[in-house]
Amino acid sequence: MTLTRNDFLALDQQDVLAPFADEFDLPDGLIYLDGNSLGAMPKAAMKRAQEVIEQEWGTDLIKSWNKAGWFSLGEKLGDKIATLIGADQGEVVSCDATGLNVYKLVSAALEMRPDRRKIIMEGSNFPTDNYMVQGLIKQLDKGHEIIFVEYNDIMGAINDEVAVVCLTQVHYKTGHLHDMDAITAKAHDVGALAIWDLCHSAGALPVDLNAANADFALGCSYKYLNGGPGSQSFVFVAKRHQAIAMQPLTGWWGHAEPFGFERDYRPMKNIRQMNTGTQPIVSLALSEVGLDIFMRADMNDIRKKSIKMCDLFIELIEQRLDGFGFSIASPKQSAKRGSQVSIYSDNGFAIMQALIANNVIGDFRAPDIMRFGFTPLYVSYVDVWDAVEVLKNIMDEKSWDQPEYKRVGTVT
Amino acid sequence: MTLTRNDFLALDQQDVLAPFADEFDLPDGLIYLDGNSLGAMPKAAMKRAQEVIEQEWGTDLIKSWNKAGWFSLGEKLGDKIATLIGADQGEVVSCDATGLNVYKLVSAALEMRPDRRKIIMEGSNFPTDNYMVQGLIKQLDKGHEIIFVEYNDIMGAINDEVAVVCLTQVHYKTGHLHDMDAITAKAHDVGALAIWDLCHSAGALPVDLNAANADFALGCSYKYLNGGPGSQSFVFVAKRHQAIAMQPLTGWWGHAEPFGFERDYRPMKNIRQMNTGTQPIVSLALSEVGLDIFMRADMNDIRKKSIKMCDLFIELIEQRLDGFGFSIASPKQSAKRGSQVSIYSDNGFAIMQALIANNVIGDFRAPDIMRFGFTPLYVSYVDVWDAVEVLKNIMDEKSWDQPEYKRVGTVT
Repeated sequence: MTLTRNDFLALDQQDVLAPFADEFDLPDGLIYLDGNSLGAMPKAAMKRAQEVIEQEWGTDLIKSWNKAGWFSLGEKLGDKIATLIGADQGEVVSCDATGLNVYKLVSAALEMRPDRRKIIMEGSNFPTDNYMVQGLIKQLDKGHEIIFVEYNDIMGAINDEVAVVCLTQVHYKTGHLHDMDAITAKAHDVGALAIWDLCHSAGALPVDLNAANADFALGCSYKYLNGGPGSQSFVFVAKRHQAIAMQPLTGWWGHAEPFGFERDYRPMKNIRQMNTGTQPIVSLALSEVGLDIFMRADMNDIRKKSIKMCDLFIELIEQRLDGFGFSIASPKQSAKRGSQVSIYSDNGFAIMQALIANNVIGDFRAPDIMRFGFTPLYVSYVDVWDAVEVLKNIMDEKSWDQPEYKRVGTVT
Repeated sequence: MTLTRNDFLALDQQDVLAPFADEFDLPDGLIYLDGNSLGAMPKAAMKRAQEVIEQEWGTDLIKSWNKAGWFSLGEKLGDKIATLIGADQGEVVSCDATGLNVYKLVSAALEMRPDRRKIIMEGSNFPTDNYMVQGLIKQLDKGHEIIFVEYNDIMGAINDEVAVVCLTQVHYKTGHLHDMDAITAKAHDVGALAIWDLCHSAGALPVDLNAANADFALGCSYKYLNGGPGSQSFVFVAKRHQAIAMQPLTGWWGHAEPFGFERDYRPMKNIRQMNTGTQPIVSLALSEVGLDIFMRADMNDIRKKSIKMCDLFIELIEQRLDGFGFSIASPKQSAKRGSQVSIYSDNGFAIMQALIANNVIGDFRAPDIMRFGFTPLYVSYVDVWDAVEVLKNIMDEKSWDQPEYKRVGTVT
């Protein structure tokens, strides 16, 4: 059946998540399909910034470490994130950048498997995880080796020489979704540990780390969780590992008694050991505003709408943009896909620039992928229709084929 | 000669830095002598926050990585910090937390001295540096050893077994100031490298890293530099080392071509290699506001006023608080002191609580040190008099001796 714009308007009418769009501030007329890179700004962000800057910093000053709970803010946020990723209270802390948390967790995991040297990773996924583990094993200098394996070959590569399987659950380029349960079970079968990077899954789809029996995880708060640019990453350590798994970036926030100012390091034997040092508080505090919106939403509703939007987007591309050389890079089967749709196109870079110039924001990943992220809290069904309509006009009129659209510059 | 309050008012009249106080927002009636822990809020901070949150995040969204220069902000701030610490442009970048930067630099330095195993540190100084190096050498597992040496014994301990001398220039508790020139020269004489932690010196006194021929340095932006709670640390790598000194936390922001999204790490061979990953941007952006004030102040004027305030504070304590069991923990010779005065007192914790309750903010460091930081940009001479007056009243009336002043909780 041929879809029409009215079908999309009708879906918006019935959308239980529609009211959430009012909690975000997006420029008028903008269709923002890049929340998988930088989440939109919650309207409450500025008010929270004012509190933390004017009241907590400006007025209460140093007292805010206790009075405003700055020192334990990472754990407070961690407990909120825990509810979105199937973790228990006390299993998650918000701190530092994604890559640093990869470094910490892979290091801790390798120490728990001292007789093994192999680490399974997906080489094509976002490279900072690769880079960090490369830095780590060079540092360790004990013959560890990363085995880079792609999607279909991962299960087969997990054997009893493997210490750690470290995967990003949703692929940043294609959106393909790994089977966390099956891969974790296979890792455990052979005596390996499983680390999950949830950068493109936390807030995008229901994640249940403890149901999967995952050992470790980490993720990002500035994409689907709308925490603000570069806001802190989070780390999950399963309770059963917390007295054993020790990360090596041993700063005072992870010390058993941080305010004892002892000369020598003694680890805190809980999730706080994953801390390093003083966090940029304004960014950390702001990220709670995004999380608080999620506390009132149902992750299953989010997933349902996300799948529907992605399916419809794919259907529209196929119905209305035939003959322009597009092909869908993401899995068509929704169960194998995150909350994005990626499209191959030889002219992807210029087409994306034209889209952006026409108020449809997605992004481009070299050499030939256009990415469109679908964030159910603030993207409507009719946005999906309108985005494809804009793309269709650009293709029909070949308006992407201009020198100004061929400059470089884009960010994850 | 006996000092009077009028002497202090007269000094304020002549103070060339007095106009800077208007650029900071401090609560009425508060005497803030804790800028060595958390700097005061510049009045311009809220406006900058509004720009970065509402305009850059809310409106420009993902475009701000280029348009607002988020991606290179750490280097932009680094270049400003460079002017305060005697570094050249391109030698400093602002990123991550202090402890992480210690880890990076000591690791890079040890790799440059592969045949040596000893690291000189001052065990009594702020312990996160110790903790991080302890974590690092455990990670390296190659027999490295920290030689903890105190102030007077440092020069004698630097011999040709030493790979790295890693010292905090100003002691966080006592305020004693190391002779950077002499220690760096001695380190070089024996073939060692010198790393300087400037947490309590950047913005507190003139620092000239290149005149001292320092190899590496790092520091804090939320103390004397007024960058906001937990704002990013900075790292200095002397130009001559930038193609060789490689830090191990190899995230994508330090990659030679971050947007190439290559599978394998290749280091950027300049100061950007010290980056790990995406920084909390709101905090980073806010810290520029504090720096911009310093760009208009003369570091020599700041030092001159700082010394005068500290000298007067010591003089007043000795003149007006004799017999209360106080003794000065900081060097009395100003050339050997940072911008703080510390006082030993058996009842220091309770006395500090009483001071805070009476609107004089300093802090306490176990077991017996009261710290008072002097920040010439927003503390006046009469504040020094008034703070001592409040302390005198507390001691005269013994009003510190109350159960409510004996609870625990304080932060660096």
